[in-house]
Amino acid sequence: MRIVSADTGGALLDENYNPIGLIATAAVLVEKPYRTAKMSIVKYSDPFNYDINGSRALRDEAFLALKLAKKVKPDVIHLDSTLGGIEVRKLDDPTIDALRISDRGKAVWHELSKDLQPLAKRFWEETGIEILAIGKESVAVRIAELYAGIYSVKWGIEYAMKEGFVRIGLPRYMTVGILESKILGKSLDPREGGLYGEVPIEQEDFEWQVYPNPIARTFMVFEARF
Amino acid sequence: MRIVSADTGGALLDENYNPIGLIATAAVLVEKPYRTAKMSIVKYSDPFNYDINGSRALRDEAFLALKLAKKVKPDVIHLDSTLGGIEVRKLDDPTIDALRISDRGKAVWHELSKDLQPLAKRFWEETGIEILAIGKESVAVRIAELYAGIYSVKWGIEYAMKEGFVRIGLPRYMTVGILESKILGKSLDPREGGLYGEVPIEQEDFEWQVYPNPIARTFMVFEARF
Amino acid sequence: MRIVSADTGGALLDENYNPIGLIATAAVLVEKPYRTAKMSIVKYSDPFNYDINGSRALRDEAFLALKLAKKVKPDVIHLDSTLGGIEVRKLDDPTIDALRISDRGKAVWHELSKDLQPLAKRFWEETGIEILAIGKESVAVRIAELYAGIYSVKWGIEYAMKEGFVRIGLPRYMTVGILESKILGKSLDPREGGLYGEVPIEQEDFEWQVYPNPIARTFMVFEARF
Repeated sequence: MRIVSADTGGALLDENYNPIGLIATAAVLVEKPYRTAKMSIVKYSDPFNYDINGSRALRDEAFLALKLAKKVKPDVIHLDSTLGGIEVRKLDDPTIDALRISDRGKAVWHELSKDLQPLAKRFWEETGIEILAIGKESVAVRIAELYAGIYSVKWGIEYAMKEGFVRIGLPRYMTVGILESKILGKSLDPREGGLYGEVPIEQEDFEWQVYPNPIARTFMVFEARF
Repeated sequence: MRIVSADTGGALLDENYNPIGLIATAAVLVEKPYRTAKMSIVKYSDPFNYDINGSRALRDEAFLALKLAKKVKPDVIHLDSTLGGIEVRKLDDPTIDALRISDRGKAVWHELSKDLQPLAKRFWEETGIEILAIGKESVAVRIAELYAGIYSVKWGIEYAMKEGFVRIGLPRYMTVGILESKILGKSLDPREGGLYGEVPIEQEDFEWQVYPNPIARTFMVFEARF
Repeated sequence: MRIVSADTGGALLDENYNPIGLIATAAVLVEKPYRTAKMSIVKYSDPFNYDINGSRALRDEAFLALKLAKKVKPDVIHLDSTLGGIEVRKLDDPTIDALRISDRGKAVWHELSKDLQPLAKRFWEETGIEILAIGKESVAVRIAELYAGIYSVKWGIEYAMKEGFVRIGLPRYMTVGILESKILGKSLDPREGGLYGEVPIEQEDFEWQVYPNPIARTFMVFEARF
């Protein structure tokens, strides 16, 4: 099974470890044995101008996943919204109302589905590829989350080159390391079966550190200093 | 404390990683230090003819646990139903109605208790051994789950010898390996403190692979090919 | 960020692994990189005379945290009550009623806040240090929990010296070891990023063992025998 997925993550943190805004949306192509990405692309946000509470992340993810899918023609697209794996092309208003999710979740999907539902329908009609709202059940979504963290670190290193210092909150239970011109990221949850990712970088000569976020248990912080 | 427990697990999967049916019910004898089974027995199901939604698994588990218990005379029997450790011999209809569980859980137990409650009562009167509905709190239930996974792999290897190939979904966060005529299974959750199991096999010369189930995060897939 | 936190844990167990009472409240000073304590103090309880269901633990923790905070002047105090990080000095009756917690939780806080709220208010007015009800989100609270487990083992070794034997239930997913006149404790959850602690002891010549609690999955048991 060839899966394209996307997720958003990595947050610029202030000195009290509170998030300022999200940094990266990553889309990945995942193939058997489903432990890392065969290919990945990224779209950066401006963390200084980001509404964390909106539905922006999911919209960004859908569009970035479609961009990659048009290129690599996967069997299926997985979005990070845990609706039991329902096809997005079927998410009309009565279907959304019938979902067993929170009222807030319904409001977000009523808004999102206005353009995502026709988009998903057209894409399926043209290519036969389904877009599924599968969320946390998907290993591909988790690999996209790891890549969002890795790309956030890449962004952070470039930011720190200019500004001298950066502090980034990584996605849930993942860690990163810098080794031989690569950012290596891996899941800290062994129950996931060894998920990881890597992205090349050019900078090498800087100090960096990874440690637990003191006010967000199971989340790690990455710092770089030039 | 000598505990007998039983659990059902391991699913034959189709090419889209959807379960066709469950494969094995394992009963185990667990003794201090409670990391593996001292003894295990198995009852195989026909995964091509299995109602995943019924109460069949729990009934199979109770009968298989009793079979092993009659032989090894444990201090207690643990069943995989999370009712806070209540004694099954006390599960009459008013008691079931008073449980803080879902209506579906109550319906299953009203049906099950018709024969399990008198059986548990008689077994307790004859032997003094209680049958407890303790579920996920029990380490012995988890060890039985690991053995259900290991026996499913054993079944799968025999199936693949005849059919050429098999794909099995293992129970939650466990992995298996084949080494020196043994199937070794172990928990992928280090919080459980190192639980594992092993069962001998005869076949050796085949290809096998374990990898994450792409649509069921924290579940692994085992494949064998002859 | 310099954080003081406190937590209570470690239970004396009977021969059926049921808790008799809690053993130790530990307060810790945690500094960057937030993986262990820079300093720790302990207050022991009498486990044979302990009401596990009351609000006693949280009260003990608040007072012990304050004791350490007066000495080390941290930036903030974290208590093990998961109220989203609200300031304890603001917990008057209307605020408690407005919290999204269980009725039982509200009753406990209505009772507790009678002396904790004015205490927190006065401490904040004098020092500027906030006491936050942050609970499981705090890494410092988890490190305090590990130290409560380590100190419980220290208490248990002294108890076993006199009584010959002790069996202690450790806090959730942590393990301990005795090495070179130290008790080393560490989290078994790798998602927490490598949290640990250590406390010196004098005794060395005794048998000890750590293994899974058979009726409390993800909790370990420590036994010592002289």
